[in-house]
Amino acid sequence: MTVAALGSAVANHERQTMTDHTPVMFANEAFYLAFAARDLDAMIEVWSRRETVTCIHPGAITLLGRDKVIQSWQAILSNPASPAIVCRNPTAHLFGDVAYVLCWEQIEQAFLLATNIFVREDGRWRMVHHQATAAPAPGDLPPAPSQPIH
Amino acid sequence: MTVAALGSAVANHERQTMTDHTPVMFANEAFYLAFAARDLDAMIEVWSRRETVTCIHPGAITLLGRDKVIQSWQAILSNPASPAIVCRNPTAHLFGDVAYVLCWEQIEQAFLLATNIFVREDGRWRMVHHQATAAPAPGDLPPAPSQPIH
Repeated sequence: MTVAALGSAVANHERQTMTDHTPVMFANEAFYLAFAARDLDAMIEVWSRRETVTCIHPGAITLLGRDKVIQSWQAILSNPASPAIVCRNPTAHLFGDVAYVLCWEQIEQAFLLATNIFVREDGRWRMVHHQATAAPAPGDLPPAPSQPIH
Repeated sequence: MTVAALGSAVANHERQTMTDHTPVMFANEAFYLAFAARDLDAMIEVWSRRETVTCIHPGAITLLGRDKVIQSWQAILSNPASPAIVCRNPTAHLFGDVAYVLCWEQIEQAFLLATNIFVREDGRWRMVHHQATAAPAPGDLPPAPSQPIH
């Protein structure tokens, strides 16, 4: 293989990888935008319609099923005292039609770490599970990766 | 459909579901048995060889990659002060060759909640991600489900 061909192959691989990961990163971003905007309709859109979704809020027990999960978000998003949340440094791990995204959640000066699992339904990534828990302050957060790590 | 045929269909479905879920539940059990026995070799066997594995220990930051994850388990399992751990009430959520298991972890009188993600490699379920975090005491833990919930 020539250097040019090798470079082309690498570029193709990178394009393919970005194409694979970008939609699920957008789905993860949609979750945090809905959260930050306290937009329940947008939050409902994020979650799977077909699967038995699950959610573990910080310090809480597991919520099982769409009704309980949506109710929990309704309570959180309708609370005017809910602090602002920002997603930091998400990284996507893709396995065909299933993916998980790990990220920091910054809530004012506090940090949490989240595991968000998504499945592809009718071509669109939907969340099936979310767990977020208190984490130590990251000190100097590394810059957002320019390439996915999986 | 006759009642007998309906019963047969339900039984077939249950067998199929059990067949699907049982191997990943065993893989989850293998993780906790290795943990409880402080068996590093068994713990290494649990984790994926091909994927970029990740691990979020309670109160810690995300570990990325097999080397860092295995090193963390080596430190935990070699500590003679490590408390006993028991997996309680695991439930499996299966999506083809990817699955996640949610369970309580009981460490003496304390409880944690874990998200464990597995992928099927060469017909064997291997862990790719583990997050465990402090949880409130469950009070009366419900009995282990006799059927998978997904």
